[in-house]
Amino acid sequence: MNLKTPLIIVNFKTYLESTGQKAVALAKNAEKASKETGVTIVVVPQFVDIANIAEAVEIPVFTQHIDAIKPGNSTGHILVEAVKEAGAVGTLINHAERQLKLSEIESIIALTKEKGLISCVCANNPNTSTGVAAMQPDIVSFEPPELIGTGIAVSKAQPQIVTNTVNQVRRVNADVTILCGAGVSQSEDVSVALKLGTQGVLVASGIVKAKDPYSILRAFADAAKK
Amino acid sequence: MNLKTPLIIVNFKTYLESTGQKAVALAKNAEKASKETGVTIVVVPQFVDIANIAEAVEIPVFTQHIDAIKPGNSTGHILVEAVKEAGAVGTLINHAERQLKLSEIESIIALTKEKGLISCVCANNPNTSTGVAAMQPDIVSFEPPELIGTGIAVSKAQPQIVTNTVNQVRRVNADVTILCGAGVSQSEDVSVALKLGTQGVLVASGIVKAKDPYSILRAFADAAKK
Amino acid sequence: MNLKTPLIIVNFKTYLESTGQKAVALAKNAEKASKETGVTIVVVPQFVDIANIAEAVEIPVFTQHIDAIKPGNSTGHILVEAVKEAGAVGTLINHAERQLKLSEIESIIALTKEKGLISCVCANNPNTSTGVAAMQPDIVSFEPPELIGTGIAVSKAQPQIVTNTVNQVRRVNADVTILCGAGVSQSEDVSVALKLGTQGVLVASGIVKAKDPYSILRAFADAAKK
Amino acid sequence: MNLKTPLIIVNFKTYLESTGQKAVALAKNAEKASKETGVTIVVVPQFVDIANIAEAVEIPVFTQHIDAIKPGNSTGHILVEAVKEAGAVGTLINHAERQLKLSEIESIIALTKEKGLISCVCANNPNTSTGVAAMQPDIVSFEPPELIGTGIAVSKAQPQIVTNTVNQVRRVNADVTILCGAGVSQSEDVSVALKLGTQGVLVASGIVKAKDPYSILRAFADAAKK
Repeated sequence: MNLKTPLIIVNFKTYLESTGQKAVALAKNAEKASKETGVTIVVVPQFVDIANIAEAVEIPVFTQHIDAIKPGNSTGHILVEAVKEAGAVGTLINHAERQLKLSEIESIIALTKEKGLISCVCANNPNTSTGVAAMQPDIVSFEPPELIGTGIAVSKAQPQIVTNTVNQVRRVNADVTILCGAGVSQSEDVSVALKLGTQGVLVASGIVKAKDPYSILRAFADAAKK
Repeated sequence: MNLKTPLIIVNFKTYLESTGQKAVALAKNAEKASKETGVTIVVVPQFVDIANIAEAVEIPVFTQHIDAIKPGNSTGHILVEAVKEAGAVGTLINHAERQLKLSEIESIIALTKEKGLISCVCANNPNTSTGVAAMQPDIVSFEPPELIGTGIAVSKAQPQIVTNTVNQVRRVNADVTILCGAGVSQSEDVSVALKLGTQGVLVASGIVKAKDPYSILRAFADAAKK
Repeated sequence: MNLKTPLIIVNFKTYLESTGQKAVALAKNAEKASKETGVTIVVVPQFVDIANIAEAVEIPVFTQHIDAIKPGNSTGHILVEAVKEAGAVGTLINHAERQLKLSEIESIIALTKEKGLISCVCANNPNTSTGVAAMQPDIVSFEPPELIGTGIAVSKAQPQIVTNTVNQVRRVNADVTILCGAGVSQSEDVSVALKLGTQGVLVASGIVKAKDPYSILRAFADAAKK
Repeated sequence: MNLKTPLIIVNFKTYLESTGQKAVALAKNAEKASKETGVTIVVVPQFVDIANIAEAVEIPVFTQHIDAIKPGNSTGHILVEAVKEAGAVGTLINHAERQLKLSEIESIIALTKEKGLISCVCANNPNTSTGVAAMQPDIVSFEPPELIGTGIAVSKAQPQIVTNTVNQVRRVNADVTILCGAGVSQSEDVSVALKLGTQGVLVASGIVKAKDPYSILRAFADAAKK
């Protein structure tokens, strides 16, 4: 299973601007920009907000993480069946802020295939992106952690690394959707990312902390369409 | 802040019987038993179910975990502000299935005090219970992990350990509410736990996996009142 | 940098039979079997025993783990410069009993290249082995954790999985040395492992807990030569 | 079991200045200062250097960490039997740079009692220090992590916090040896720490990175004697 590209994934993280009622409002803005442009926009709220958002919008909702567990004797963990019933259709895996052991990443990818969720595995450099791609997820998102939250886009600051990552990943996986993230804050960053061979972007603070998230998302979607 | 004792806390864990719509139904049964008997019953659903349950029932809802984070740059973590807005009034901390570093436990206790949540810290033996109690949480819940999920209650299998734990804990903290858990599955287990000096029980599979959770909870509440 | 194949790596783990003076004796037996047969045998003692063993034998000594750290402000971690000065020439990475985050594995592989150590990354199934191989270590060792310590060799119990792993790994990395481990306890297990396309084995309890480790190692080395 | 106070513990961390042959030289300087003054000085080298240092000096040698494991099926972990055979007589536990889960801290304290090692548990603030002291280790060392490596001593920067910690700890444990650490770099820091009610200090960079570690240690020991 996978999503139509180009693709914009909006990670809500744990900002107050994307918590509770504000998270629902942000998701509606994302839906509006998506419907107007036809570009796929995915929202990734906190766990507690998944159900309300999935009810409020029709665009895809991902969860920020799932655990490699089966139903049962676990406390404080994220059960795939629970996030699915709440309305999530995919999950981030191994985000730089929620890093996992190699065997967990593999188990979670297997779990998403079994349960019909879309898997988006994050990786921090060309080598880990390639390692991840070799394990056959639906999406690989490449984010140099030193740029996360800076407003300096990897596509602008390190275009060669994006190109290298795309090339290395393609050598081991012809089909995986490749995104880049970290610092994406201007529509030009989106265009450049696509020109460098990616199929979209993973964004967070650039949208969530914006004064007018709708306008930025609309501009990103317009840039992605060209 | 704290709750009226005796106290029954029902940890929903990640059982399918306590996920999604079934979690709401289970919470309503808990509410019924609580209202009929006047005994405090707390429900502790998965993160994604907190909002729906907090809307459906008037009994206290806890979260299974929160992270020692501030709003912002975190992915896949549990923000105290988010679970509060969803309706949680307390949290488990350091459950045997979600163990934390010592400094995290302390940070989370401090965070609950700052944000007005009730803290229930779990510990696995008399020494760790005492260490935890010295850090001034609202509730300490003592659960030998080897009995969790067995149906063999610690109050029955190891009464001396419960007594020792209560005595050791009281030496360092006169006020903390003391619960015991692990294997509580019969109303007699509740009575014995209270006789041994605790103020209530933490239960999970004994309720969640029961054919008729309401009846068991009602019997537990009746036993707690005597 | 790499070692002559076929290759037998003996993980001493933390058995009493392979601690302190007994570890030195075991390493000498490994050296004897290696010198008599010409087959490369690597010993992997506990950290505290590296220096004594590296002084006592001429065969390669690996460390069981290194951390992704630079010299400085770390306590209780394994510094590559320290194990090198003690005499180690390589390291296990991500053993099933010491699993690491993906980004740590990559950082440690990079560190071994920078410092001239041989890297042997362990993985638990065909997919993780392929992911690891894509990150360009010197050696990949494939060990299904459910067979570790059982005496049931993966080469005998799951020959198809060994073949699949070799095929998958070769698609992304033509040069990496491929070992298999888990349950290797008879010389026939070694022969079969090599026939299935690996270049050697990673063994532990089969040698360490043996009444006569030298005889077993000698038989393994003889089997590897054929 | 415990050590004569006042007590100076020197954590070698993973500095190059305290690795391998340099670690042995540093330990000899510590021994010299200890013998000249009669003040107990403990050295805490990296795992790989324990054996050489324990052979070279007569002052107590601690390990930086042990794991809560029994002999057997563990890779890359620290076995208490192995560090004992190498010559260690005690261990740091839960250093700010090697933090542990609550239940691990308790298991390791129990293991040290069983095996006759001295336990020195580190904690980051008054509450965690008190929690730790309630679990009955031999030594508690209080170190605010924000001061570690700064050269700004906690005894100077936050004297009230040291006093509070000593008072809180004494309420739950009359016997434990209390040290303070973090930023101790001048002999005056040692005197102040003792005046505030501690029995000694835990130091690292202040000694290890000094041009003349012997002189500083000698000055520290002299200050401790007064």
